[in-house]
Amino acid sequence: MQKRAFTIAEIAIAPNPERWLVNALYDAGISAGTLDEDSRGLIWLGFHDPDGLAAALTRAPNIEWVQLPSAGVDDFALAGLLDHKIMWTSAKGAYSQPVAEHALALIFAMLRDLPIRARAHDWGKPAGTTLHGKRVLIVGAGGIATELLRLLAPFNNHVVIIRRTPAPVPGAQQTEPFERLSNELAEADIVVLAAALTPLTRKLIAAPELHTMNPGAILINIARGGLIDLDALTTALADKQIRGAALDVTEPEPLPSSHPLWKEPRALITPHTADTWDMIWPLLQERIISNAKHFLAGTDMRGQINPAAGY
Amino acid sequence: MQKRAFTIAEIAIAPNPERWLVNALYDAGISAGTLDEDSRGLIWLGFHDPDGLAAALTRAPNIEWVQLPSAGVDDFALAGLLDHKIMWTSAKGAYSQPVAEHALALIFAMLRDLPIRARAHDWGKPAGTTLHGKRVLIVGAGGIATELLRLLAPFNNHVVIIRRTPAPVPGAQQTEPFERLSNELAEADIVVLAAALTPLTRKLIAAPELHTMNPGAILINIARGGLIDLDALTTALADKQIRGAALDVTEPEPLPSSHPLWKEPRALITPHTADTWDMIWPLLQERIISNAKHFLAGTDMRGQINPAAGY
Repeated sequence: MQKRAFTIAEIAIAPNPERWLVNALYDAGISAGTLDEDSRGLIWLGFHDPDGLAAALTRAPNIEWVQLPSAGVDDFALAGLLDHKIMWTSAKGAYSQPVAEHALALIFAMLRDLPIRARAHDWGKPAGTTLHGKRVLIVGAGGIATELLRLLAPFNNHVVIIRRTPAPVPGAQQTEPFERLSNELAEADIVVLAAALTPLTRKLIAAPELHTMNPGAILINIARGGLIDLDALTTALADKQIRGAALDVTEPEPLPSSHPLWKEPRALITPHTADTWDMIWPLLQERIISNAKHFLAGTDMRGQINPAAGY
Repeated sequence: MQKRAFTIAEIAIAPNPERWLVNALYDAGISAGTLDEDSRGLIWLGFHDPDGLAAALTRAPNIEWVQLPSAGVDDFALAGLLDHKIMWTSAKGAYSQPVAEHALALIFAMLRDLPIRARAHDWGKPAGTTLHGKRVLIVGAGGIATELLRLLAPFNNHVVIIRRTPAPVPGAQQTEPFERLSNELAEADIVVLAAALTPLTRKLIAAPELHTMNPGAILINIARGGLIDLDALTTALADKQIRGAALDVTEPEPLPSSHPLWKEPRALITPHTADTWDMIWPLLQERIISNAKHFLAGTDMRGQINPAAGY
C-alpha cells in the first residue's frame, strides 16, 4: 500500500518519511513519499535544519511548495532559503493556542510571585498582584497575539498591540506602530513579546528599552530569544530595573548552565516548552493535511510566508 | 464632624474604628462610630478573632446585624457565635475575582511544571500539559466557582461541580452531589477545592480520596486548609500518587518551616496570598457600604450567612 503511494507521490516528506504523517495523509486521501526529481511539494520536518533543507532542494529541482514545521522561520530566512520561486508555508498560527496559554501562565507566575514561592522553604510575607485592570503591551499581531487577546478578555485589561502595519487588531484597545514602542513600554504593566524574529526585531528589547520600562513591570518572551539583548536583560534584572522576566526562549538556546540568569531571583526560565511536541503534533498534522489538499487543488494554503518580511 | 457622627451612629466599627472605613462610610452618607449600647449594626474587622467579637457582643446587647470581614467564616462558626438572633453577613463572593484568578494561576503553574522550572539551574527536558480540553472538578458552587467557570471558558474544558444542593451551575457541564465525589475524583485531571470549611467538608480530601485520584491529576486548594488531610497529602505526594498539589491554604497555617511539604518537589505553596489585603480592601469596603445602606433601609443584604450550614 505505501510502496505504491511512494511511487506516485507528488508530495514528499523529508528528511525522514515519518510513518505517522504518511499514514495521516493517506487517510486523508493523499499519497506522500520520499523526495525525488518528481516531487512537487515538500513537507520539511527538520525543525532547525536549514542546511538539510538546502541540500534536499538541490536534489529535487521541481519543488513548487515547501511546508516548514515551525511557526517562526527565522532559521530558514537567515540561511537565505526563502526565495520567491517556491511557495513557502509555515505552521504560523497553528501553535497559537498552547503558546498564548503559556504566555498567560508566565504572566500569572510573575504577578503572583510563584517563582519566589516555589523556591521558598517557609511561609512568606503577603505579596502579589492581580491581572485585573492591568495595562498589557503585546509586541506582534499574529496568531499568538490574537489568541492571547481572547484569553485576556475576562480580565478587563487595557491591551496595546505593537505591529508593523497600521490595521487595528480586534479586541485590543489600541494598535500602534513600532515607532511608538518606547512610549508604550513606559506605560505598560505587562510586556509580552509575540513577534517574529527578523532583522527589524532582533534585539528589539535592549538596554534603552529596559530602562524605559516601568520598574514594576514584567517582561514575557514566548517568541524568539533573539528579540531580547540577553546581557542587557541580565543587568536590568540584577539592578532591579524591572520587576521580573519570564522567558520561554533565549539566545543562545539552550541557555548554558553557567548563565547568571539561572540564579537571578527575578527570572523564570522555561526550556522552550510553550508548545511541546505532544501539544503541537496534532496541530502540525492538521495544518499539513489542509495545506497538502489545497496545494493539490491549486487553492490558497494557510501560513504563507512573505519572503521579504521573513515571516 | 466625626465626633458628631460617633454620637449618633447606629453602626459601629470594631475592634478599631478604622479611619479609612469611617471616612468611606461618611462619604456614602453613613455615620459609623465606636461600639456601645446604642449600636444596632456591627462591622467586625478582626479577621481571625472570634474571641474579640464574642467579648464585643456582650458589651453591645442591641446588635441586630454583624458584618464579618472574611469570605469563609469557619473561625466564627466553630466558636459558636453564629446564632439566629442576629443577622450575620460575610464577605462571601466579594473576593471571588482575585481568588479564582489565583486558582487559575496555580492550575497553570502545575500543568506547565513551573515549580520545577523555577527551582532548576539548567535547561530541562520538554514537559508540560495544556489546560485545553481537560476535565476539571470544582468542589463548591459559590462565588469562586462561578468566577473560575468564567475564567475557564476559553479552554474548552469539561467542568464538573460538586455541591450540596442539586441546582445545576450555569457554565458547568455537570453538577453533582457530594455523594459522587469519589467517582468524579477518579475522572478529573484537575481538582479545585473552593468550598466552605464546615463539619461536613473537614478533611474532605484524605487518604482514600487521594488514592482515588488519577495519578496524572493535580490538586488545587484556594479555600481552607482544613479541607485536606495534610498528612495524607504529604504521603500521597511522596509516593507519587498524584502529579502535584498547589496550596494557598494549609492547616496549620502558617505551615511550619519544618514541614516536609516545603521540600516536596510536587508541591507548590503560596502563603494565603490568593487575596492579599491590597486586593481585597476595595472589595470589602464596597461590600460594607452596600450592606450598611441596606441594613439602614431594612432591605436585603449580600453575603447572608446561614448559621445552620456554617457559611
